[in-house]
Amino acid sequence: MDIEIKTPQDIKRLNIKQLNELCGHFRERIISTVETNGGHLSSNLGAIELSVALHYVFDCPRDKIVFDVGHQAYTHKLITGRGDMFDGLRKNGGISGFPLPGESEYDPFIAGHASTSLSVALGFAEAAARLDRDEHVVAVIGDGALTGGLAYEALNAIGSERLPVIIVLNDNNMSISKNVGAMSKYLTRLRLSKRYIRMKSEIKRAVSIIPLFGDGVLSLLDKSKGFLKRVVLSNKMFEEMGISYYGPFDGHNVAELIDMFEQAKKKNGPVILHVITDKGKGLSSAANDPEHSHGISSCEGSRGEDFSAVLGEFLIEAANRDKRVTAITAAMSIGTGLEKFATAHPDKFKDVGIAEEHAVTYSAALAAGGLKPYFAVYSTFLQRGFDELLHDVCICGYPVTFCIDRAGVVGADGVTHQGVFDLSYLSMLPGMTVMCPTDGDELKAMLEFSLGFDAPLAIRYPKSYVVTRKHSPIEYGKWETVREGGSRVTVLCAGGRALDVAEKAAEKSDITIVNARFVKPLDEAFLRARAERGDAFITVEDNIARGGFGESVAVFLNKSGYGAKCVTLAHGDAFIDDRTVEGGLEKSGITEENLSRLIKSLE
Amino acid sequence: MDIEIKTPQDIKRLNIKQLNELCGHFRERIISTVETNGGHLSSNLGAIELSVALHYVFDCPRDKIVFDVGHQAYTHKLITGRGDMFDGLRKNGGISGFPLPGESEYDPFIAGHASTSLSVALGFAEAAARLDRDEHVVAVIGDGALTGGLAYEALNAIGSERLPVIIVLNDNNMSISKNVGAMSKYLTRLRLSKRYIRMKSEIKRAVSIIPLFGDGVLSLLDKSKGFLKRVVLSNKMFEEMGISYYGPFDGHNVAELIDMFEQAKKKNGPVILHVITDKGKGLSSAANDPEHSHGISSCEGSRGEDFSAVLGEFLIEAANRDKRVTAITAAMSIGTGLEKFATAHPDKFKDVGIAEEHAVTYSAALAAGGLKPYFAVYSTFLQRGFDELLHDVCICGYPVTFCIDRAGVVGADGVTHQGVFDLSYLSMLPGMTVMCPTDGDELKAMLEFSLGFDAPLAIRYPKSYVVTRKHSPIEYGKWETVREGGSRVTVLCAGGRALDVAEKAAEKSDITIVNARFVKPLDEAFLRARAERGDAFITVEDNIARGGFGESVAVFLNKSGYGAKCVTLAHGDAFIDDRTVEGGLEKSGITEENLSRLIKSLE
Repeated sequence: MDIEIKTPQDIKRLNIKQLNELCGHFRERIISTVETNGGHLSSNLGAIELSVALHYVFDCPRDKIVFDVGHQAYTHKLITGRGDMFDGLRKNGGISGFPLPGESEYDPFIAGHASTSLSVALGFAEAAARLDRDEHVVAVIGDGALTGGLAYEALNAIGSERLPVIIVLNDNNMSISKNVGAMSKYLTRLRLSKRYIRMKSEIKRAVSIIPLFGDGVLSLLDKSKGFLKRVVLSNKMFEEMGISYYGPFDGHNVAELIDMFEQAKKKNGPVILHVITDKGKGLSSAANDPEHSHGISSCEGSRGEDFSAVLGEFLIEAANRDKRVTAITAAMSIGTGLEKFATAHPDKFKDVGIAEEHAVTYSAALAAGGLKPYFAVYSTFLQRGFDELLHDVCICGYPVTFCIDRAGVVGADGVTHQGVFDLSYLSMLPGMTVMCPTDGDELKAMLEFSLGFDAPLAIRYPKSYVVTRKHSPIEYGKWETVREGGSRVTVLCAGGRALDVAEKAAEKSDITIVNARFVKPLDEAFLRARAERGDAFITVEDNIARGGFGESVAVFLNKSGYGAKCVTLAHGDAFIDDRTVEGGLEKSGITEENLSRLIKSLE
Repeated sequence: MDIEIKTPQDIKRLNIKQLNELCGHFRERIISTVETNGGHLSSNLGAIELSVALHYVFDCPRDKIVFDVGHQAYTHKLITGRGDMFDGLRKNGGISGFPLPGESEYDPFIAGHASTSLSVALGFAEAAARLDRDEHVVAVIGDGALTGGLAYEALNAIGSERLPVIIVLNDNNMSISKNVGAMSKYLTRLRLSKRYIRMKSEIKRAVSIIPLFGDGVLSLLDKSKGFLKRVVLSNKMFEEMGISYYGPFDGHNVAELIDMFEQAKKKNGPVILHVITDKGKGLSSAANDPEHSHGISSCEGSRGEDFSAVLGEFLIEAANRDKRVTAITAAMSIGTGLEKFATAHPDKFKDVGIAEEHAVTYSAALAAGGLKPYFAVYSTFLQRGFDELLHDVCICGYPVTFCIDRAGVVGADGVTHQGVFDLSYLSMLPGMTVMCPTDGDELKAMLEFSLGFDAPLAIRYPKSYVVTRKHSPIEYGKWETVREGGSRVTVLCAGGRALDVAEKAAEKSDITIVNARFVKPLDEAFLRARAERGDAFITVEDNIARGGFGESVAVFLNKSGYGAKCVTLAHGDAFIDDRTVEGGLEKSGITEENLSRLIKSLE
């Protein structure tokens, strides 16, 4: 195509035909790039026309477009001067898969976690009003992100504040897994209703008889007794929250979208524009199976075996034996390995949508009620449930097992998704036991252990493991000595990545290597015995140092008074902005080279 | 009164007249007890008839009544065998101010933090269905708790799951502060509508012409085209969520409530019963000013000066000077000292309701948009915003100031409200600066410092301080030496309570005392200098040890290689179940005696 888009201004010069052409061009570009680099395909394919229309109507960066979770922001990135960097999507030096203020002035806020856009948009609208800035604020939120409680808290505030926040509800009936919950059913009812079909033709007629930027669709809908509003809005949940609702609209019709946004710009109060999109539009495989093409890993990212497969298989089998077993996920059934479980045990499977807080408290009550819940969740997303972990699970000590995937550095998803805080925020919880498996066999043994364990338990692991080892049986609070060395240096490893690093170092130094499978409680008897004979210790973990495994070992040794040396290898006090697993570990010095250096200094 | 209530069974034998008498008796008992012991008065006075009717209809502990946040549970406690212990309300050895499973089999789940009841009820209902237990599950949730996103996530799930959860919406239009947000407006509209008034007389007629436990009010309402449903439910947000809505009902009419609950028991799916209550009913001062009588401190609890007053005064004055200043609270304007600010600067004051997640993300966006937000919040409630602190505030480093009240042990509110985790969960956040003032003057100086500080900042303090000292000016990352001693023991204190303990110990030992006003970053230059000259260190803090101030000092000293001794005085790895501040500190050994003992061992 001849049109080159360097800035959003270039879009404003195009006519509808050219805009449609441009959308086709973007679609091809996104498909080919994601196929190479990995990324979020289907949600981005659904938001192409939407993004083009938004930039046609609004003037960024003065106006602010806040993409929720950012799975829809690729087209926005292509439009806002990042076409040249797009081939480096999700790679170091290239562009992030999510909006990132440090990357472009067109990304007004960071957005890796879901359901934040409405709070952010309201904050921007308030700041603009208070500082007398004339700017529009648009939040683009998917129906999946709308299941998060944070979004509801913000809707509540938006309805109350009456500021002109424009909410574009990008409704593709697919959060990440199959969408769940009452909100989803509500939107489905709207979408499938005869009203929608009737209304579409009404809108087309309206659009055809009025000038494109004149007194169009929205004004027609706004007449409080008008036909469209009456039929469409007999279902008026959003209006009950004080937010004017318009829709549903066809999210792939650029002309209709432009008209709608132009009208919304003129509104004084908060508005929801309900836009129906096809997730994965333009790519038959993605459209047909949008969940599997939600997040695509690049080829290089998928080394080793996935822990998630072990979890899924174990739980299917455990639920066959034990009717109490229940698996909970927050919109991540495939990523956490529960896909087959959902089919094998539909009654014991609960996908609560993007709602980690509810998932934690609900799990606590399932346990209090006599069931055996397993909440499978990504490390970074469990942060949302921190208060519920503390208050609802740990004070009374309910036996919920947390299967925490994507712990440690995560690679391409980058800074917002690093799972490097969990050992710290889990270990500080009184009554929580924290384990790290080093491979699939050990995870399986830990899960078997969990079945008979009657207290809160967290098992955390990264996406995959490379090496499988023979293991001793799991015994509460006991570590496993993997290698007994001749030197007086003992390397304590939390998890498989740490163990891999230590074993490489053992090729040069005759160290003792320990699989510290329990991060909490520590194996104090072991530490005492080794400290007594004069060992020096090095801890290795794929977690931040502060409040993590190594610090708890150092603090214990300090207290026990043996004067044992303890050096901690962990991530430092900074966010890790690297898009490869290796790079993330390397930047923090969690490498064989660095460990060997430390060993030498202690020997 | 002659009726003695030992168990809920005793209630079931009474007639309506006797039940009303009983309610009067409970009312007197609650008022006199709270006047002596402190506690939550108005919300409990609103829920007396409700609780009596619930126990008349349901069979606890087989049936489960889950009180949200538990501010309404006093009558429930009086009914369920705890009348004898009621004089010890909120005291050690007496009963907790909140539902506590360890206290009674009639309290099925812990409930100190808001908005958890719906997730809990759904968990119980699922467990009962799966384990073939025939039991009813009732959640009693106030309209205030309904602003929390967690409650919405649960409503979403309840609407989807279709289990027979009975939700009693106790609507007194008052969360803790004045209720806010769109949900509140919605409920007000329902409550004030002519429909409600019309319906009340309709219900009275219905009740009068049918037997008390017969085919009563609910069945009438349930006829999908019936008059009442049509008029009442033209506003049908809850029904959109898949939950049958009935109401509003008069929450002080025992007969009406009993009839309603009997009908709800027969329902197969989820039901919301909307009950209107007068918060503080029966006590004119509480009813007239329910916010001030929400939480009443006992006389003994209010020693010293409150930090909150300093915050409020400072912000009023700062907002006069600086138009960017914005104060945010989550339903705690009085508790955090913002009451006068709200009047002085209504446009710069935001009460978002019980919605800490939104408050944090919203504050981040206010800062990103150029304002200067101060989120005033209790330590225990900020736990809800942990992910938002990390993802929305800290990754991009927005200059939000968190004014964290009720840090450390909190006394009578007990185990669910202890603010002893914040130094740990805040210090682990990259880019977060954490400060502890020791008195009001120092808090004021820190707030003045915050105005010019361009990064995330947390200032944490308990409710009050006793001693006011002269201070040196605040300098980033620098501690203040309060007392230079002759011995080689340096005591590092985080906050006023720690400093009080150290100064008492200094009467016996010639120690150096340091006001470690910055918990993060540490004053490393100071530590190095003292370690070099051979000092031993003791840290004192009103926070858990794990990941807290003392451990970070010990870890730093360990790394720096001076071999300096460091002993940490902090709370251990357990929840603190004590209802006095002194007792909470004492149980953890944060006392002069213990500190003096440690000093001696190091001298």
